[in-house]
Amino acid sequence: MTTAHRASGEARPGGRTARTRQAVLAAVFEELGHGGPAALSMEKVAQRSGVHLATLYRRWRCAEGLVCDLLNWLSADVPLPDTGTLPGDLRALARSIGTFYADERMRSLIEAVVSAAARDPQAATALRDFFGERLVLAGEMVVRAVERGELPPDTDPEKVMAALGAPFYYRILIARGPVDTALAESTATAVWVSARAGAYRRTESHNGAPHDGR
Amino acid sequence: MTTAHRASGEARPGGRTARTRQAVLAAVFEELGHGGPAALSMEKVAQRSGVHLATLYRRWRCAEGLVCDLLNWLSADVPLPDTGTLPGDLRALARSIGTFYADERMRSLIEAVVSAAARDPQAATALRDFFGERLVLAGEMVVRAVERGELPPDTDPEKVMAALGAPFYYRILIARGPVDTALAESTATAVWVSARAGAYRRTESHNGAPHDGR
Repeated sequence: MTTAHRASGEARPGGRTARTRQAVLAAVFEELGHGGPAALSMEKVAQRSGVHLATLYRRWRCAEGLVCDLLNWLSADVPLPDTGTLPGDLRALARSIGTFYADERMRSLIEAVVSAAARDPQAATALRDFFGERLVLAGEMVVRAVERGELPPDTDPEKVMAALGAPFYYRILIARGPVDTALAESTATAVWVSARAGAYRRTESHNGAPHDGR
Repeated sequence: MTTAHRASGEARPGGRTARTRQAVLAAVFEELGHGGPAALSMEKVAQRSGVHLATLYRRWRCAEGLVCDLLNWLSADVPLPDTGTLPGDLRALARSIGTFYADERMRSLIEAVVSAAARDPQAATALRDFFGERLVLAGEMVVRAVERGELPPDTDPEKVMAALGAPFYYRILIARGPVDTALAESTATAVWVSARAGAYRRTESHNGAPHDGR
C-alpha cells in the first residue's frame, strides 16, 4: 500500500462534518468486520451510524465511495518512518503495512475497494489517485536515500515504493494467505537489494541485460 | 500470476463437453471485452455462446465460476521457460506475464476473479488453489537454479515465483497503470538479485538484519 500520513481533507476538522464522517466510517469498518465486503450497503451503514441515508448518498454517493473514504481515513495511521537509513526505513514501513493488514477488517477493506473499482469507474479513479498520492509521499524516504548516496541517483522513488507494497496486495488478493512478519522482512530485504542493484532506475536500461550482466 | 502450462482437467478433451466449455469460455472472454467485469452475467453468456442457461448453471454454478474457469483455460497458453539460467527464465516468464496482461480483457478477467473472490468463498478458494498450483509449477525453474548452484540451497521456489507475479497484480489492481515491458524487465531483475541475496529463503533468518548487514 505504501500508505502514508496525509494532510486531512476535512474543511472543518473538529466540526459536525468531521464527527459525521467519523461516525459513518466507523460504521463502515464495523460492517466490514461483520459481513465482509460483499454484505456492505448504504442502508446498513445508515442504521449502524445513526446518520441519515440521504446524508450518506449526498456525501459518499454509494458504498464504493464509503470504502474509498475509509481507506483514506485509516491510512493516516500508518506513519512514514525516518530512521536514518533506507534499509531501516523500508523495514519499518513494511512492518507497519504488515501490521495494518494483519487485521482481517483491513483485508476486507482492500478487497472491497478493489471490487468497487472493478464495478465503478469513479471508484477506480479514486483508488488510483489514492495510491498515486501515497507512493509520492512515501517516496520521500527514497529521495533521502539518494541524497545520502545509498542508491543510484536516477532511482525512481515511486517504483521503489510500489515494489514495497506489491507483495502485500498479492498475498491478500491473489495468493489469499496470511500477512505476517516474514512477508514484511522478506519484502524489505528484496526491495533494498533490488534498488541498490538498479532495478528501479528512472530511465530503463536498453541493453536488455540483467544488472549483474548474466 | 506465474501462470503455467497445466494438465488439462477435461474428461473428454475432444468431446462435446470440451466444445461446450470452449464456446462458453470464449463467450465469457468476449463479454469481458465488451462490458468489463461488472456487466458479466450468466444470461449474457448463454445468449452469446448459444449454450442453455441451465447447462451454465449446472456446470459453472454462477458468473464467478465462469471467470475462474476462464482464467484456468487461458493460463495454459503461458509457457514455462527453460532457458538454462534463472535470470533468463525469470525474464522470459516476466515477459510472458506482461504480454498476457497487456490485453485489456485479461485485466478485466483478473479484476472479475478478484471481485468474485470478495463475494463468494468458493471463488476465493478456487482463486487460491489456482495460483497455489501455478506457483508450484513455475517454481520448477527455481529448483533447477538451486541445482545449478545459482541460488542459496534453502531458497523457497514459491516465494520466488510469488515475487515475480506480485508487481503485475499491483500494477493492474492497485496502481491501475499499464503493464509494459519496463515492468517485466524491472521485475525480473529485482527477483533475480533478491533471490541471490537470500530474500526468499525457506527458513526465515532470525537475526533481523537485512542481507547485507545494514
